[in-house]
Amino acid sequence: MNIMLEDKNPELTPISKYGEFGLIKHLTENFSFENPSTEVSVGDDCAVINPDGKKVVVTTDVLAEGVHFNLGYVPLKHLGYKAVVVNLSDVAAMNATPTQILVSLAVSSRFPVEALEEIYAGIYMACKHYKVDLVGGDTTSSTSGLVITITAIGLENSENLIKRSGAKPNDLLVVTGDLGGAYMGLQILEREHSVFLANPNMQPEMEGYDYILERQLKPEARMDIKKALKELDIHPTSMIDVSDGLSSETLHLSDQSKVGFRIYEEKIPMDSLTVSTAEELNLNPVMCALNGGEDYELLFTIAPADFEKIRNHPDFTIIGHAVDLEQGNYLVARGSGELVALNAQGWDAFLNKGQ
Amino acid sequence: MNIMLEDKNPELTPISKYGEFGLIKHLTENFSFENPSTEVSVGDDCAVINPDGKKVVVTTDVLAEGVHFNLGYVPLKHLGYKAVVVNLSDVAAMNATPTQILVSLAVSSRFPVEALEEIYAGIYMACKHYKVDLVGGDTTSSTSGLVITITAIGLENSENLIKRSGAKPNDLLVVTGDLGGAYMGLQILEREHSVFLANPNMQPEMEGYDYILERQLKPEARMDIKKALKELDIHPTSMIDVSDGLSSETLHLSDQSKVGFRIYEEKIPMDSLTVSTAEELNLNPVMCALNGGEDYELLFTIAPADFEKIRNHPDFTIIGHAVDLEQGNYLVARGSGELVALNAQGWDAFLNKGQ
Repeated sequence: MNIMLEDKNPELTPISKYGEFGLIKHLTENFSFENPSTEVSVGDDCAVINPDGKKVVVTTDVLAEGVHFNLGYVPLKHLGYKAVVVNLSDVAAMNATPTQILVSLAVSSRFPVEALEEIYAGIYMACKHYKVDLVGGDTTSSTSGLVITITAIGLENSENLIKRSGAKPNDLLVVTGDLGGAYMGLQILEREHSVFLANPNMQPEMEGYDYILERQLKPEARMDIKKALKELDIHPTSMIDVSDGLSSETLHLSDQSKVGFRIYEEKIPMDSLTVSTAEELNLNPVMCALNGGEDYELLFTIAPADFEKIRNHPDFTIIGHAVDLEQGNYLVARGSGELVALNAQGWDAFLNKGQ
Repeated sequence: MNIMLEDKNPELTPISKYGEFGLIKHLTENFSFENPSTEVSVGDDCAVINPDGKKVVVTTDVLAEGVHFNLGYVPLKHLGYKAVVVNLSDVAAMNATPTQILVSLAVSSRFPVEALEEIYAGIYMACKHYKVDLVGGDTTSSTSGLVITITAIGLENSENLIKRSGAKPNDLLVVTGDLGGAYMGLQILEREHSVFLANPNMQPEMEGYDYILERQLKPEARMDIKKALKELDIHPTSMIDVSDGLSSETLHLSDQSKVGFRIYEEKIPMDSLTVSTAEELNLNPVMCALNGGEDYELLFTIAPADFEKIRNHPDFTIIGHAVDLEQGNYLVARGSGELVALNAQGWDAFLNKGQ
């Protein structure tokens, strides 16, 4: 998958051939602009954005080699795409419309220009798909490894924005799509990579895992949810994206909204492949949904009065409800009804160093 | 200087004690806000900024350990301060007012929490000094080294913004402050660090080099120039900050404005300590100003009619003028008047790996 770095082909181009400015120009020259809010882009000291009366939302995320991705099995184009998506997911979680990104790379000289072109090809795909403009960034060498930092900007009318802080007791807790798939995809990639390292002649067994591999390697930001909610005439009271696992995101909503939550184990939406793969690997599928992370679905609360509007919609699953803060945050176990405390041991870049 | 990392004191706190979210909360809890445009800050999926009718400028810069700084002689607090300043300098170069920053760190677990506190203490000092609000960021582990990426946001009325692209032939080329000092400061730091590595009992000889050491370790963004220009009733036709050396910045103005430039060698402003240190180290001081970088002064063009307004101002030096693009970019040598082509061999993170 990752031919670029293994290939000792002397025709690959060292980054030093371009220098910093030439490199940025080279990598971004085929990017065009889709947003009238983009007034000045790459090539000046700053990008200039015309908010046209809207509020500006801004977020940044770092992806570090050896922590967030392993170039042994993550193709560079997918990495570029995903680095954009994880930021746009944060914009989606504000119910805002993403408009611009800035891309910063710290990259060791072991990467040829062709490797950066692959990363930028993925960034380009994401920009086209989500209609966002690349307006700036910085590229520098690093003494080792690859660190991608992306900043995403979105514009939105003030009344549409949704924060983490508006949930009230009795509000319903709703999640989009299904959970745990990205984490299971990672487990399969890591298993097959270990097999490959032990015996490079072994063919990786990826067949039949398509859905969870795609959840891990090519996640999408749920930009479609904004429209769906509008059509249903629902304005969530709080919202967050599921980047670190359902458990930790629920605790964030709790922390910012000053409410507790009950999540019903049997309601957590999971794809059948996620469940069967978890069982194959002797993992508890519910724990994968709670603590696995990287699903980039949206988790939000709605007023109880909106129940009928959403209950049969295929994109949404009601998984619980808010309670008074003093009642804490618990998973209600299937069958027994036992309360299991939610904790933030989710995906954590400082604990899971092996990922 | 860099006690934190050398000190094996077991009371230092490993980052894993906090986890990602706890850590950001811990590091940013004493930050307060000074800008009414800051509506939502750390703690939500995105920061929310109210542009209040103004245009938004945004820029990002990466500082990588071993490339942009050497923790052997750069104190962490200075590093945090400088990482903010280099971004604010880009905002100053648009003639905009900086309002918010986002800070992303990729940091190896060899750094204790106390080291990050030092970096944030420097960031805090810069936020206070420049009246900007820290509104977001991301902190993650890295497999090695420290990478700091800062995104700075500024707001400004459209008519005040100055791009790189407005210079016309016969415009005067003006620079603030003096040049080459930061580069000479770096040479002294590297010399003394080499001496220290060879013999740790040797005391570093830093005395008498204060000005150039400060230019390197604690540069300031020229936010004061906006006010000075306004008082002089001068609106530059193009502007850029001097982060990579006078030569390369002049070529950027040339490239974006489609003009050429003549710079007069004898006009380039240099501090006497910069000149004497260059001579001590057998370096050509003019080359240090042209290619040294990191001075964070502003370089701009003004209409010829503004000559009288600026000629005697202590902050500004007229160093040359714009010509037709076909006439190219040249340094006019002192005395001989010989034309020496300007080139972009300035400070380049991909070429000067040793820095």
